[in-house]
Amino acid sequence: MNMLFSLTIIMSHKPTLPKGTRDFNALQVQRRKYILQTIELVFKKYGFMPIETPAMENLSTLEGKYGEEGDQLLFRILNSGDYLKELKDYTDRMLADESMDRTFLPSISGKLKDLDAKASIKFLAEKGLRYDLTVPFARYVVMNRNEITFPFRRYQMQPVWRADRPQKGRYREFWQCDADVIGSNSLLNEIDLILIYAEVFTALAVPYEIKLNNRKVLTGIAEVVKGKDQMNAIALSIDKLDKVGDEGVRNELSKYGFTQNEIQLLFEIIQSKGEQQFDELKIKLKDSAEGLKGIEELEHIIHTIAALPNKPVNLSTCFSLARGLTYYTGAIFEVVATAGSIKSSIGGGGRYDNLTGIFGLPDVSGVGISFGLDRIYDVMEDLSLFPDSLQASTTRILCCYFDKSGQAYAINAAAQMRQAGIATEVYPDVVKKIGKQLDYANALNIPFAVIIGENEIKSGKPVLKNLTAGTQQELSLADIITHIQSHLV
Amino acid sequence: MNMLFSLTIIMSHKPTLPKGTRDFNALQVQRRKYILQTIELVFKKYGFMPIETPAMENLSTLEGKYGEEGDQLLFRILNSGDYLKELKDYTDRMLADESMDRTFLPSISGKLKDLDAKASIKFLAEKGLRYDLTVPFARYVVMNRNEITFPFRRYQMQPVWRADRPQKGRYREFWQCDADVIGSNSLLNEIDLILIYAEVFTALAVPYEIKLNNRKVLTGIAEVVKGKDQMNAIALSIDKLDKVGDEGVRNELSKYGFTQNEIQLLFEIIQSKGEQQFDELKIKLKDSAEGLKGIEELEHIIHTIAALPNKPVNLSTCFSLARGLTYYTGAIFEVVATAGSIKSSIGGGGRYDNLTGIFGLPDVSGVGISFGLDRIYDVMEDLSLFPDSLQASTTRILCCYFDKSGQAYAINAAAQMRQAGIATEVYPDVVKKIGKQLDYANALNIPFAVIIGENEIKSGKPVLKNLTAGTQQELSLADIITHIQSHLV
Repeated sequence: MNMLFSLTIIMSHKPTLPKGTRDFNALQVQRRKYILQTIELVFKKYGFMPIETPAMENLSTLEGKYGEEGDQLLFRILNSGDYLKELKDYTDRMLADESMDRTFLPSISGKLKDLDAKASIKFLAEKGLRYDLTVPFARYVVMNRNEITFPFRRYQMQPVWRADRPQKGRYREFWQCDADVIGSNSLLNEIDLILIYAEVFTALAVPYEIKLNNRKVLTGIAEVVKGKDQMNAIALSIDKLDKVGDEGVRNELSKYGFTQNEIQLLFEIIQSKGEQQFDELKIKLKDSAEGLKGIEELEHIIHTIAALPNKPVNLSTCFSLARGLTYYTGAIFEVVATAGSIKSSIGGGGRYDNLTGIFGLPDVSGVGISFGLDRIYDVMEDLSLFPDSLQASTTRILCCYFDKSGQAYAINAAAQMRQAGIATEVYPDVVKKIGKQLDYANALNIPFAVIIGENEIKSGKPVLKNLTAGTQQELSLADIITHIQSHLV
Repeated sequence: MNMLFSLTIIMSHKPTLPKGTRDFNALQVQRRKYILQTIELVFKKYGFMPIETPAMENLSTLEGKYGEEGDQLLFRILNSGDYLKELKDYTDRMLADESMDRTFLPSISGKLKDLDAKASIKFLAEKGLRYDLTVPFARYVVMNRNEITFPFRRYQMQPVWRADRPQKGRYREFWQCDADVIGSNSLLNEIDLILIYAEVFTALAVPYEIKLNNRKVLTGIAEVVKGKDQMNAIALSIDKLDKVGDEGVRNELSKYGFTQNEIQLLFEIIQSKGEQQFDELKIKLKDSAEGLKGIEELEHIIHTIAALPNKPVNLSTCFSLARGLTYYTGAIFEVVATAGSIKSSIGGGGRYDNLTGIFGLPDVSGVGISFGLDRIYDVMEDLSLFPDSLQASTTRILCCYFDKSGQAYAINAAAQMRQAGIATEVYPDVVKKIGKQLDYANALNIPFAVIIGENEIKSGKPVLKNLTAGTQQELSLADIITHIQSHLV
């Protein structure tokens, strides 16, 4: 094999990652875990319990739940077994024989004939990857309703997959951290979920704002401005306010047939702010019972939270918030970072009155929030918010030595240090140069090294080096352990 | 809509899970996390660093790495976009028109013609789900070799997917927890990995045995018994010893053309046990340099571990251990539970000299182990080893009340308790019956409840109920917090 040929082989094997997916190195994993653990600790403090669902769901569970666009973004899993093999045989044959007649079509066509036309894709795929955590949760509740104690406060922290066009801040595999309460209509749940948002982002030092709206208010606005049936048109348009601005929304509403007066009235309502906002809105929405109910709910939530002994909660109403045409029927939440370059939301959620209905269990009300781990990570990186104490390696001490007998001593010393709970490594290979071993420790920011030479073995006092301070001293193993433990805090 | 029709709708929506996949309820998640955290803590104590890789890999990364059977068990992800749509159009058309001529075949056939015959499946799927953690790790090392400090001690704890026939103890989604050292030939790594096995299973109270062999010994045995080229035949046969027994192995070897004398010699060698085993084997394998090297390695590992101040390590040689025809070139590990009904391995691993070679980075030696989370879970459940302290809910106290003013008091009390770090719930709905609220607490094993009535609000001393002991007392909020904190330990 000549050089060029072997080079070609190497090149041709050069591995890559699927578009929109990422590896995480040790530092990134530690930082992601820091966020996850912070969220989880708060979820638990508010009485939420974990569940997990499989990555794969039946397509019948997923399809039709996320709109037409969502269906297109589902990752579908090829059925294994004969269908696949038959299709492969068939395509192989077709490739081999240009003149292949239809009578050569293999048994696959027979199978296809038995299927409903709309189900024809089923012979290829019947499973898909989880697209969010809400629909699997609804399925879980329906399947396990006899074992669940309601109201059910569940949290779930798992990856989801969407075949979205990858771009900055948008990945094809990303993590959601959801907390939902199902089986209770009380606004106390909305209040708890808002407090969770505040507590998590305060703990992470992320500057945040929680925006709050209510679907009933949106209905009320539609009713007052033009008619209840215009709710979707209004919701779709004003939800884009941040993206397209006032003019953009006005133009879109014109296209939907709204008059200038109607648009003017709409903008007056959704731009209410400050202390008087609820009084103003109660007057403006006085002809909509549903709208007034929405205002009352918002007011109760905001006033209750303001009266609590908690740290200040950055919460404000946003009457243009609609979060698309989703299943929300009451409260709507969205969280954004108020500093840095990342403008997209880092959390969102709301109340839905009939989520499990799609799986045959009607009239179960729920309310939930979601944290977007990857977005929060990007915000924290953007704003340099990760604690310096988070390092790729959590090893505290590296045992270094010169020869076989030093190695034997080192293994024994390491065993004692590990028994004392100290994360310890022994440099695995006998390399005479201590410098190379210390290079390894420095590259991984390991704070201590112990050097084991012939004299140190004799005296029973190896040299302990503090690699950060650059100091060193001869100490017994017991003293080394005490010394390092005092630095663990 | 009549009753029967609406019932049909409900039935037709009844959701299910894909075959071989499972949901985990709160208690199961807590127990799985307990195992994962125990393993992770030990990984860190031995200086391993975490990485994570995406669930989806390119099929070119996965295919050909797990043998033909492995390729068949890969879950493949359907390409999104036009190919799929074209195939659907095509099948729909074929279904609609029995007489469809080959000239009607859509542009898909044109696309297929451009492809290599063997690549014909690519138009359907180019990505697959992670089948294990070792191949993605090898890919990771090759792609990130310039950023990695070698020797690289990495751990990875993530789910993998295999389209295996589901059966007891075998799932289509299951978790592996791997630790590998790459870039070091030292046997110190094997020793560390064995110590990790011992420490984890001791911490989990799982009765275990670590079986150790060496691929070089297997080569030596083949060389001595019949010839080096018989290594695979021998390895394949004796690996089944536990399953098919002595007779089964003897029969299979006969079929491979081994004489009775050869089989007799083989059994004498692999059945060496006890203190004299290494001396015996050194004599029996004296004509195989590679076999002697393997014995030397085994001896070094066993003697070094025996001399450490660790708790006893349940480690023994097993000369019939081969772990299939994998990429192992040195040490081979397998762990089994020594009690209970689950006989399959709960861990395994070994040394591989050229894993990254398949991705164009030759001559990098590695050694690794894997923990099978789901099998360990099954063993621990089988043997009732989970601590009672692991509960579905981790809530410490439920705030109960009778009316709106009680609710307001309860929210405020909960805020103070949460600020003190106590996991607290407020029963969300106003239900006059305290019994219903306490039923909820009892169903979730919440240990304390605080009852807030009119008198309690006036006196500032709600009733604290210890639901386990059945006792109760009137205490101020501050005293309640102190009382519960003293029970947290």
